[in-house]
Amino acid sequence: MPGDKVRFAIIGLDHNHAYNHARLLLNAGAELSAVYSDEPDDVAAFQKMYPDCPVKSMAAILEDRSIDVVGGSAKPADRAAISVKAMQHGKDVVADKPAVIDLDQLAEIERVQRESGRLWRFYSNEHWDRRCTIKAGELVAQGAIGRVVQTTGFGPHTPRMPTRPRWFTDHKVSGGIIGDIGAHQIEQFLFFTGSRTASIVTSATGNFGHPDYPEFEDYGEATLEGDGGVGWFRVDWHSPESIRVPGDIRLFLLGTEGYMEMRKYIDVAGPEGTEHLYVVNKDGARLIDTREVQLDFGARLLADVRNRTETSITQERSFLITRLATEAQLRARRVGGPVLAAAGPQGQSLA
Amino acid sequence: MPGDKVRFAIIGLDHNHAYNHARLLLNAGAELSAVYSDEPDDVAAFQKMYPDCPVKSMAAILEDRSIDVVGGSAKPADRAAISVKAMQHGKDVVADKPAVIDLDQLAEIERVQRESGRLWRFYSNEHWDRRCTIKAGELVAQGAIGRVVQTTGFGPHTPRMPTRPRWFTDHKVSGGIIGDIGAHQIEQFLFFTGSRTASIVTSATGNFGHPDYPEFEDYGEATLEGDGGVGWFRVDWHSPESIRVPGDIRLFLLGTEGYMEMRKYIDVAGPEGTEHLYVVNKDGARLIDTREVQLDFGARLLADVRNRTETSITQERSFLITRLATEAQLRARRVGGPVLAAAGPQGQSLA
Repeated sequence: MPGDKVRFAIIGLDHNHAYNHARLLLNAGAELSAVYSDEPDDVAAFQKMYPDCPVKSMAAILEDRSIDVVGGSAKPADRAAISVKAMQHGKDVVADKPAVIDLDQLAEIERVQRESGRLWRFYSNEHWDRRCTIKAGELVAQGAIGRVVQTTGFGPHTPRMPTRPRWFTDHKVSGGIIGDIGAHQIEQFLFFTGSRTASIVTSATGNFGHPDYPEFEDYGEATLEGDGGVGWFRVDWHSPESIRVPGDIRLFLLGTEGYMEMRKYIDVAGPEGTEHLYVVNKDGARLIDTREVQLDFGARLLADVRNRTETSITQERSFLITRLATEAQLRARRVGGPVLAAAGPQGQSLA
Repeated sequence: MPGDKVRFAIIGLDHNHAYNHARLLLNAGAELSAVYSDEPDDVAAFQKMYPDCPVKSMAAILEDRSIDVVGGSAKPADRAAISVKAMQHGKDVVADKPAVIDLDQLAEIERVQRESGRLWRFYSNEHWDRRCTIKAGELVAQGAIGRVVQTTGFGPHTPRMPTRPRWFTDHKVSGGIIGDIGAHQIEQFLFFTGSRTASIVTSATGNFGHPDYPEFEDYGEATLEGDGGVGWFRVDWHSPESIRVPGDIRLFLLGTEGYMEMRKYIDVAGPEGTEHLYVVNKDGARLIDTREVQLDFGARLLADVRNRTETSITQERSFLITRLATEAQLRARRVGGPVLAAAGPQGQSLA
């Protein structure tokens, strides 16, 4: 296949990350060969965006030996089975978060990946679709802030409940808040601390602000310890829609000789634009212009597909992210609840 | 005493927070009656700032019945004994962090406070000397961001090792990084979540960047759970001196209807000035001008001294802050160490 065009299919349109996968691979020069979803409205919307893309059944896509890669974003509980079938049919997989909803699903993916030798690679758009994060990686590798000893991530998101499918508030289908939007955070913790092994020290989920959806988790956090450093993050569904972006998502790197902050989608009441990278070290504090940074994950992923390499993300890290996110989700302490809710919606006594 | 001038003494000049106490009480109208320190150089420096202040022995200060309040900042390991003696001699106490270095010292302070009926109040300058934090408290009480469900604090500090006394790197004298600069964070977690009870879920300390001082803790973190919300913070001694402030100290409040961020001493590569408060809620994102906010902790503290009230900070919260900070310090997991140090000082492999 080296030199040939890589052909890919999208299976699952239940989250708009399917469009990220399509864009990522198309921009890198791959060919969109087919799409499948069990939701007809989602298929119709996808066809509006990509009118030349054939709609096929899942079986037809799996049997089509000309398709090299499967991406897409089905309902989270269904993703593992799609990954497994795709690899069993000789295809590489671009995995969205949450890639699994329990550890049995992950064990099956790991087993089939090892048996089949296919690539199963995790893609985090909060990392690889944000120029500030890519630039931060370059600067850290150059030693700009010494060793990164800790990462702190905020993954706030706007809930926009009326736009969400019913399964969104059911963590048995959605995978829960940490398995879902926490996975981005774990990927970046491993990346920036250079950790190859890591564990969850403690994690928590809760519902603080959505009494109408008692099963919904609108808050999550986890404390991590890796062989390269430590990490903590929180994720939530509390952001006001007034900011008009998915969330004021931040990443802070604490180094032995300085620190960095990424304001990924908005710099609230600050400079215009997005993907802002602040670097503070012995030379002072700077806002780095990241507009010229290339988004190259797609190109590296296609190189990995052609050359069976690990230039985009390693196989082991893809598994480790997924394992840690799932463990953090399943073992989470429950926080919030009746005591907090009883205090009433407005204000707080700060005696 | 109501209406009379409150008279105070400073005992202990080992940390410059003694000057914060003096300024706090003088600005509120109290009279500086005496100073004592076992470090002659520190006494000489204090006399330069306050030439009219008599230097006395500790015994003379304790026996002087005209002195109502004792503040100051001795070596941390010595502070509890000073607090106890002061209360036994009928004086109220303004406590600096860390107020104790172990739980036995705290138990003795609590016992003597209850027996003597004196006030023993914890003062956090990172809260009460920063206008943005005071303004945030007012806005939270008005319901500007709904209920505060989580606080995240960063307490980075510049180490300036050559300027530090020898005991600074010995956590058996200094109380350790969480007992010390983590106490500010705990005070603000309790305040902003309105928690009256709380516990440490997990905590960690480590030395990532100071191999010449193996006993020194240059990193600390803690995860908190309270009856009003949850919290996490990290503190460190890694800040570059280039920023020319004690540290880029931040506090983030996550509410059910918005969030706030305080950039307390510097807004790196951002707007000039300090004490910046960012508020994001349904009305959008704003940088709030806090320059007109009054620093009123000192006035409220003197009112408490006169009226035996709890308008500055309650007695129970003063104890709870100290207990949590001490527990978090003493029970901390050890992070960092040889594995991390072995990777070398420059850069990181981000494969």
